[in-house]
Amino acid sequence: MHFTLEHTDPATRARAGRFETAHGTVHTPIFMPVGTVASVKGIHQKELREEIDPDIILGNTYHLFLRPGMEILEAAGGLHAFMGWDRAILTDSGGYQVYSLSANRKIREEGVKFKSHIDGSLHVFTPERVMELQRSIGADIIMAFDECTPYPCDYAYAERSMHMTHRWLDRCIEHLKKAPPKYGYEQSFFPIVQGSVYPDLRRQSAEYIAGADAVGNAIGGLSVGEPAEELYAMADEVCRILPEDKPRYLMGVGTPINILENIALGVDMFDCVMPTRNARNGMLFTSEGTINIKNRKWATDFSPLDPMGLTFADREYSRAYLRHLFAANEYLGKQIATLHNLGFYLWLVREARRRILDGTFGPWKDKMVVQMDKRL
Amino acid sequence: MHFTLEHTDPATRARAGRFETAHGTVHTPIFMPVGTVASVKGIHQKELREEIDPDIILGNTYHLFLRPGMEILEAAGGLHAFMGWDRAILTDSGGYQVYSLSANRKIREEGVKFKSHIDGSLHVFTPERVMELQRSIGADIIMAFDECTPYPCDYAYAERSMHMTHRWLDRCIEHLKKAPPKYGYEQSFFPIVQGSVYPDLRRQSAEYIAGADAVGNAIGGLSVGEPAEELYAMADEVCRILPEDKPRYLMGVGTPINILENIALGVDMFDCVMPTRNARNGMLFTSEGTINIKNRKWATDFSPLDPMGLTFADREYSRAYLRHLFAANEYLGKQIATLHNLGFYLWLVREARRRILDGTFGPWKDKMVVQMDKRL
Repeated sequence: MHFTLEHTDPATRARAGRFETAHGTVHTPIFMPVGTVASVKGIHQKELREEIDPDIILGNTYHLFLRPGMEILEAAGGLHAFMGWDRAILTDSGGYQVYSLSANRKIREEGVKFKSHIDGSLHVFTPERVMELQRSIGADIIMAFDECTPYPCDYAYAERSMHMTHRWLDRCIEHLKKAPPKYGYEQSFFPIVQGSVYPDLRRQSAEYIAGADAVGNAIGGLSVGEPAEELYAMADEVCRILPEDKPRYLMGVGTPINILENIALGVDMFDCVMPTRNARNGMLFTSEGTINIKNRKWATDFSPLDPMGLTFADREYSRAYLRHLFAANEYLGKQIATLHNLGFYLWLVREARRRILDGTFGPWKDKMVVQMDKRL
Repeated sequence: MHFTLEHTDPATRARAGRFETAHGTVHTPIFMPVGTVASVKGIHQKELREEIDPDIILGNTYHLFLRPGMEILEAAGGLHAFMGWDRAILTDSGGYQVYSLSANRKIREEGVKFKSHIDGSLHVFTPERVMELQRSIGADIIMAFDECTPYPCDYAYAERSMHMTHRWLDRCIEHLKKAPPKYGYEQSFFPIVQGSVYPDLRRQSAEYIAGADAVGNAIGGLSVGEPAEELYAMADEVCRILPEDKPRYLMGVGTPINILENIALGVDMFDCVMPTRNARNGMLFTSEGTINIKNRKWATDFSPLDPMGLTFADREYSRAYLRHLFAANEYLGKQIATLHNLGFYLWLVREARRRILDGTFGPWKDKMVVQMDKRL
């Protein structure tokens, strides 16, 4: 995998680039819709391709490990074939879900023992095991197994955990040396910077991760409850250290404003459940601000869902209709809102890319972060 | 509305025909997908148009009355505009739902008093009121307000109820004389035959309904729990009496086999929640029989969902993938199964039409009812 840095914005540190995968080119900055259990909730793959058009989506190793399980994914020939998605896929390492979802998790140097949140069955994730799982899934980009520290997290714990994450990284790399990709195409490996909200730890971790000389690098352990200022400060520190010529992936971020601010700091890749999860709760992101479509004020607003008209859902349905679907608890409402939000997120990163390439990103970003902060 | 009888099958009494509405031509036999609360559950209007392609869908007056309510539907300019569906719509009279869903319903000569199943609010439906509701909804075909008797139902009740349904019919007709359609296009009125499972009552009711000389006629009070033989026997009796030159609509029917058998008896129009509701429970209808996709046997069947490939869902997803989505409780599973089942139902009536037109309906129907009765 080779990353081509196409342009850096003069006013900020925003970058436009691209990299190739066995499943197509990924143009950055990019937002990766989250397809947790081999499905971006409420959206057909066809719609995702034709209406949202992301170069890459994300799958969750923890969820895929539990259902459908590796045996079925391997028999299918990997996740791409299983779910019918022929563009790029990135999988996380499962760590985040183990810490946030599973019960009775025990973190040791060897790995993590945990109980499934579905049936209470006992499992162990080690760095080596998680590399194997991601090989079986067959994602184009696979992530190091790390500990995602909670927020707040005391300094001593954050430091100890960071060092363990670094040792786990070495084990992941060691394991992958002996294990070629399973399906005949390249699976690129990204290590993950940790260090909670402590600038010196973040710098130390970024140096360590940069030293691994991977094809791309990730920033983890953020967007876990810390104030936006701390998120930006950490991304800033880390982006100054991570190599310029590799894509930088900020995991689990975030709001449209978070995304633009982090693009300005030099982040290239994002993923978050926010556009899909909030959609299912009736919250729409737009370029003018957020909409709670359940609000009575939309009951007789027969104008199109979003005048930007990015997806057929924005053009063909009215706000009044969507509000009705939420009031009547009709699942089509969630489908429509999901299409809208993902359409908007992908527009946002594509527009950011266009602005970076033509040198107008800075002022546009400043205008957008004010505008998008409104509630309509 | 004018019905053109194009062809009658030589071996059965199956008919192919068509009629015009302000929202396009309806080709019969037809199955009308049910869009209960202004949405065919789990399906975008765009998909319904492009993948399922029905000439007409059904809306439920009772549900639309409760949500979004007539004020909003009128402000939108009717249901077509509100939901973004520019083909024909038929609305039922709300009677069936009042009897099956609402609490504390009291049926009197004047009408029915009932409590909403949503918030317990008190409402009254009279024949006149229900005509007004259907005018506000703006459906192309509107139905008489009737009493749908339960099964079983004793003779005395069925007879009394049938006569009341006839008197209510007269009130509907009387009311509509003074009330032109609300949105400038024709709303065709269909009366409904009742009479439970008593052949003499069914004949008597069919004579009465035929005498109303409406542009189309419906058969109600069936598919409420009676054995298939009684359903067929009643439809048979009634179809022999209802005029040849008007479409015949058998309400709330049914399985694919029910539909073919009733087409053979001379029925032209059908609606049922079965393809959509059963889809949401993982049951697929196919030309080879039914599939319970939750069954473990499909877990590694990576062949396309249905080799007939009627919709993109049948071509792009495997049985193993759909089984996984149901196992993981992912809503996309319900969306896929719904697309499949509606695609199959519409194929079934279109194929029936083609066979009627080319004179091969009878033997094809006999083969299909055996084949579709299997469990795969």
